[in-house]
Amino acid sequence: MGKKLDKKAQAAVAKAAKGVKAAKVDKAVKKFRKLEGKLWTREYLLKIAEFDGATIAPANGAAARADAMGTLAGEHHKLLTSEKSVELVRSLARETVAGGKIDDPQLLDEIRVLGRDQREASVIPTEEAEAWTRLTCEADAVWHKAKTANDWASFEPYVDRIVAQLKHQAELMDPKRDPYDVWLDQYERGLSAKSFDAFCDEVKATVVPLVHAIGERGQQPAADFLHARVPEAAQRAMSFDLMKLVGLNLNDTTLAFTEHPFSEGFAVGDARIATHIYENDCISNVYSIIHEAGHAMYELGVNPAYARTCLEGGTSMGIHESQSRFFENTVGRSRAFMGPLLEVLRRHAPEVYGDVDEDTLYRAVNIAQPSLIRTEADELTYPLHVMVRYEIERMLFAGEATAKDIPALWNRFMNEYLGIPVPDDTRGCLQDTHWSGGSFGYFPTYALGSAYDAMFVPAMCRDGVDLTGACASGDLAPVRAWLGERIWQWGRAKDAPELIKGACGMAFDARYYCSYLQDKFTTLYEL
Amino acid sequence: MGKKLDKKAQAAVAKAAKGVKAAKVDKAVKKFRKLEGKLWTREYLLKIAEFDGATIAPANGAAARADAMGTLAGEHHKLLTSEKSVELVRSLARETVAGGKIDDPQLLDEIRVLGRDQREASVIPTEEAEAWTRLTCEADAVWHKAKTANDWASFEPYVDRIVAQLKHQAELMDPKRDPYDVWLDQYERGLSAKSFDAFCDEVKATVVPLVHAIGERGQQPAADFLHARVPEAAQRAMSFDLMKLVGLNLNDTTLAFTEHPFSEGFAVGDARIATHIYENDCISNVYSIIHEAGHAMYELGVNPAYARTCLEGGTSMGIHESQSRFFENTVGRSRAFMGPLLEVLRRHAPEVYGDVDEDTLYRAVNIAQPSLIRTEADELTYPLHVMVRYEIERMLFAGEATAKDIPALWNRFMNEYLGIPVPDDTRGCLQDTHWSGGSFGYFPTYALGSAYDAMFVPAMCRDGVDLTGACASGDLAPVRAWLGERIWQWGRAKDAPELIKGACGMAFDARYYCSYLQDKFTTLYEL
Repeated sequence: MGKKLDKKAQAAVAKAAKGVKAAKVDKAVKKFRKLEGKLWTREYLLKIAEFDGATIAPANGAAARADAMGTLAGEHHKLLTSEKSVELVRSLARETVAGGKIDDPQLLDEIRVLGRDQREASVIPTEEAEAWTRLTCEADAVWHKAKTANDWASFEPYVDRIVAQLKHQAELMDPKRDPYDVWLDQYERGLSAKSFDAFCDEVKATVVPLVHAIGERGQQPAADFLHARVPEAAQRAMSFDLMKLVGLNLNDTTLAFTEHPFSEGFAVGDARIATHIYENDCISNVYSIIHEAGHAMYELGVNPAYARTCLEGGTSMGIHESQSRFFENTVGRSRAFMGPLLEVLRRHAPEVYGDVDEDTLYRAVNIAQPSLIRTEADELTYPLHVMVRYEIERMLFAGEATAKDIPALWNRFMNEYLGIPVPDDTRGCLQDTHWSGGSFGYFPTYALGSAYDAMFVPAMCRDGVDLTGACASGDLAPVRAWLGERIWQWGRAKDAPELIKGACGMAFDARYYCSYLQDKFTTLYEL
Repeated sequence: MGKKLDKKAQAAVAKAAKGVKAAKVDKAVKKFRKLEGKLWTREYLLKIAEFDGATIAPANGAAARADAMGTLAGEHHKLLTSEKSVELVRSLARETVAGGKIDDPQLLDEIRVLGRDQREASVIPTEEAEAWTRLTCEADAVWHKAKTANDWASFEPYVDRIVAQLKHQAELMDPKRDPYDVWLDQYERGLSAKSFDAFCDEVKATVVPLVHAIGERGQQPAADFLHARVPEAAQRAMSFDLMKLVGLNLNDTTLAFTEHPFSEGFAVGDARIATHIYENDCISNVYSIIHEAGHAMYELGVNPAYARTCLEGGTSMGIHESQSRFFENTVGRSRAFMGPLLEVLRRHAPEVYGDVDEDTLYRAVNIAQPSLIRTEADELTYPLHVMVRYEIERMLFAGEATAKDIPALWNRFMNEYLGIPVPDDTRGCLQDTHWSGGSFGYFPTYALGSAYDAMFVPAMCRDGVDLTGACASGDLAPVRAWLGERIWQWGRAKDAPELIKGACGMAFDARYYCSYLQDKFTTLYEL
């Protein structure tokens, strides 16, 4: 009897202890969610301030913005990496393994992803994180002016400072790895200079002969209409129709104007686009809009249950670019899409597009030839633009060059890869915004994004999605549904390799991209 | 000898103690400035988010924005009112009195102003401050839709909740005072219902007979051109020229578009304007721009040494409105300014203004007659619009009415004060944004602002500023210099009564306003 009582008492004690532990875990989860909320608020505000700075903010407000953003970034870093936060995430991580108290799949993902963010951020001191935001904020303002004024010299010192900082940060993150590899991996999990070199070799082997073959044919389709004037107001109105055409809900977005088109996801229900309108290059805006809409739809398609958690937003830049470039190229430059596209063009620029037929438009928007500006480049030469930047970045990180060498290197690689002279830095090494924002190791993701796209096409087909039919009808709902299910909804819960595997049933393989380019341009140019 | 040593030792100890104390004060001052910086960052970001919400943010982003702003406001409140902060400011305040260690005049002002902010904020719990920001943020989004849809019912519950909250907050701030008085005093130090009643009586006694006399004359100047179509693009370009004309540096500002024109000062070098363009009412935009430019120039004219401290920004809404309305009316609707103004109008709308002469324009922009929309009202009837809102606000705070009574009350008072029927709530009680933002007790400051302006005119004259000459030449530099010296530079370092005394050499006196209106409209209408 005594024994029985003993057992009962023991069981009661154990039960009570279990209860206490469960309550403790619940409390920790609440704290964790609160931390996520605070981090989210800072990320949201940083984006608002950044978007403001890149679109409508006055020039003389730059210093105040840099100050506020620096403070905000510092607070974000401190919140994420404080001893208390680290201990909190660790204690929860212990509950996610077998026998632990946490089995909610979303929460498991949140703890894993925030834990990784934390480990990566922890190696960088808060003051450095804050100073970094100020530096890139300032550099961005300087770059804007430098680009307009074709003045590399004014921007040059910032590039050296940024590269030095990035190398230092990479060494803190992983002292055993090559710093440039650390950054490649930051933008695309698993990417390294070695794997990207292999990718480049494969792509070059396909693209370079094609570009030569097209060049040797000596004749490009006539397409004067591409540079006919379409007034700004008409292009603005056209932009909204294009956003609707690809499927972006206008209540979820804003169209702003800036130097270099970009998109930014702010929150569930809020992902914005900024474009640049040239009156004599309407097609430039058309594809900027479609491209940025792809980014925005990805951000808007994330599982709403992830709102205000660390799982909100896109998982990697490679996947992000795959979404934007899927709409821009796979859909937007397909033969089938020319019908719906032409309808919009004719609605807003009838005097220019009234007489253009679908075949002519298709050939015009797919003219493949060496050009100066990456964002305007055709699908075929595009990866070569990426390689120019990649070569330079590797040299900077390897200490084989400094910022003052960049203009000459740029011109040299543009000649090597694309065979064209660069008239000025504005259309050369000052054209992109990325370096001013500290995004080194980012460009490769553009080429990878396109390569992912080439794998999505057969995967969609396998899943019964009629991509060509959707493009031809202008109703892209089935395409969005597939991307939504396979990619968008997962937010940051899955890394790129896992997403690709899940969507395509296999690991990444560059051959799909090579054969897509080979097929498309051989047919187009009757090679 | 022993005594001497003793004294020396004592002196040394005292000196050392003094040194220790001075170092302690220095440390506290550093902490104080850091606190100011943190508060400033949150104010700046709240403004960015608010401006974004009112101009370009997509509809579906409202919830996320409310969330972020609520968190931010909560943090601001917590930072300002934490025990640590209160003790810090108190300890510094002890050093500002006679015999204290602090004598830097700016720092004395900072400690005084932040101390008052702190005392006023401390009575409201942080959760309440946070909930308040969320409520007004949400109410603002609802009001935008309600105004467009002429749907008072959807907005109504927010008004009741906001008034209840404001009464509660006022009771916490000063349980002995009437809650509405507490809010009047918040927007304009020293203002009370009693003093504003007296002001209203005085103004009514001048304005009502004038309005009647004008009405009885039965004839208004012909001014069809006021409603001729001026395309949006031309009005946009005109807006920038008007901003330049009144003296706003375009590198310090941005022009955005919104439902209800407003301006917001973000920082030294960054004060923005948002306007609303109606193609068939170009003059509406002209005076919105000039009005908002006045606000912006005030914010931009604050002593740059006050940047990122609690002294940045305008001191009160009455003074703020005095600046906007000085440019809008005293300058912008003066006979002398018609020359420079007409030049801008002709530049951007030659087909409309080519044949209009200065006298005709002067009479047209000064047509005094009862109308529906406050922001479009002429100088003479304007204060009556304020009184309509004031009467309703008093009744709400006195518990004599609730939100559901507002449409009927609005129509009744519009009839009593202005003698015109109100066709719908969109042009009635839904027209202003203020209530959705929780700004009750604010409207009186508009009328006070105009009344201050009437005192500035003789004060400028006394100081040798040729106001008429400046208006006629279109070079307003001497006017800006006077306002800059007397008003703008002081930021929040001086309260309204002190500024008025300093600028005009006397306390506020409504008679200047009455005689200004009397003179202007008697002459204009040959009464």
